[in-house]
Amino acid sequence: MTTDELPVTDRTRLRRLREKGSRSRADLDAVLAAGFICHLGVLVDGSPRVMPTAYGVDGDTLYLHGSVAARSLLAAPDAEICVTVTHLDGIVLARSVFEHSFDYRSAMVYGVPRPVTDPREKLRGLRTLTEQCAPGQWEYARQPSRKELAATTLLALELTEASVKISAGPPDDGDSPDAALGLWAGNLPVTSSFGTPVPDPALPPGMEPPAHIRARAGGALG
Amino acid sequence: MTTDELPVTDRTRLRRLREKGSRSRADLDAVLAAGFICHLGVLVDGSPRVMPTAYGVDGDTLYLHGSVAARSLLAAPDAEICVTVTHLDGIVLARSVFEHSFDYRSAMVYGVPRPVTDPREKLRGLRTLTEQCAPGQWEYARQPSRKELAATTLLALELTEASVKISAGPPDDGDSPDAALGLWAGNLPVTSSFGTPVPDPALPPGMEPPAHIRARAGGALG
Repeated sequence: MTTDELPVTDRTRLRRLREKGSRSRADLDAVLAAGFICHLGVLVDGSPRVMPTAYGVDGDTLYLHGSVAARSLLAAPDAEICVTVTHLDGIVLARSVFEHSFDYRSAMVYGVPRPVTDPREKLRGLRTLTEQCAPGQWEYARQPSRKELAATTLLALELTEASVKISAGPPDDGDSPDAALGLWAGNLPVTSSFGTPVPDPALPPGMEPPAHIRARAGGALG
Repeated sequence: MTTDELPVTDRTRLRRLREKGSRSRADLDAVLAAGFICHLGVLVDGSPRVMPTAYGVDGDTLYLHGSVAARSLLAAPDAEICVTVTHLDGIVLARSVFEHSFDYRSAMVYGVPRPVTDPREKLRGLRTLTEQCAPGQWEYARQPSRKELAATTLLALELTEASVKISAGPPDDGDSPDAALGLWAGNLPVTSSFGTPVPDPALPPGMEPPAHIRARAGGALG
């Protein structure tokens, strides 16, 4: 939500504009900051392939764990990719099947990715990605060795071409003839959250997780 | 998990095979049945585009809400697509940053989609998709009119070429030299669940959701 958008009335916001395409950078940043798993689309032998992978954002750069796409990137280093991040917020239960939809926030980022080769940028990018997935772990865990860094494929994608969609609000058919059917309608929220940490069975018995991990238990994701 | 797989020992299952590629149809069916939002990859002007959309599975056929891809399908009706379904089950917090990973289940289905044009199959496919998203709503809500059916793009993709990955279990570095670092390691589970239904403000006050919707509140998704 930024101030450079057209004003909307309560009526249009609630009834006509459930799905809002946004060109706002603040909306893009918020959608990307709310997760750490994206769906990466690449071309393989002329056909699309879509793979889940981890990402993190540092300023204008989205860093991607690229090992899943290493083969396709070698074959076509200048090919465009698409990175999509989706947060499902609920199901919109309308009076008619046709008006059923979803509450969601999603972002798509397009571009030619740059393989990160400079060891300092690679370390910084991996830190970004790790901290977005698991805040506190970069300092807590053993950081990558030179050999491990070399074995990691990290991609950088600039946030220059992107689109955002945000869909929220009640069903669209509350002021349609279907309202007379007398059916219940509304939204069924969906939330993702972190559970209780499960210790590795290889740990000594009774070892407590550190505070930065305990702090996430029960917290929301997305 | 089917009986036609190679036997694995507890050691390999827990330590060496966190990520398991599966060719088992039962695993594919289970991953697809656990969700209703996929990421659809299509080619647009020679580049991949990845969009979230709804799906449902009926036997050997995956039905997709295809309106998001209608333009690209018109431009290249014989082009392959990739449908990916991902369930994030947790973050694997290892002793080293390098061994950090995720608990997840994912499926990728490849093929040339078939636009569903026969009105009877379209109705059946939409019912499949609706019931996978919101069980009970097909019978409860007003079903699609002929005009609404015609305005809906439904795609069918046969489950003939697909791959499944399932990753679970403790971190891989419990028997590595890093175990001597004395760091906590384990899994931070992630779960998605349905919240309390939110009534459309346009409803008469005090109207209760029907039982099939109330029954989902607090339940797990995925």
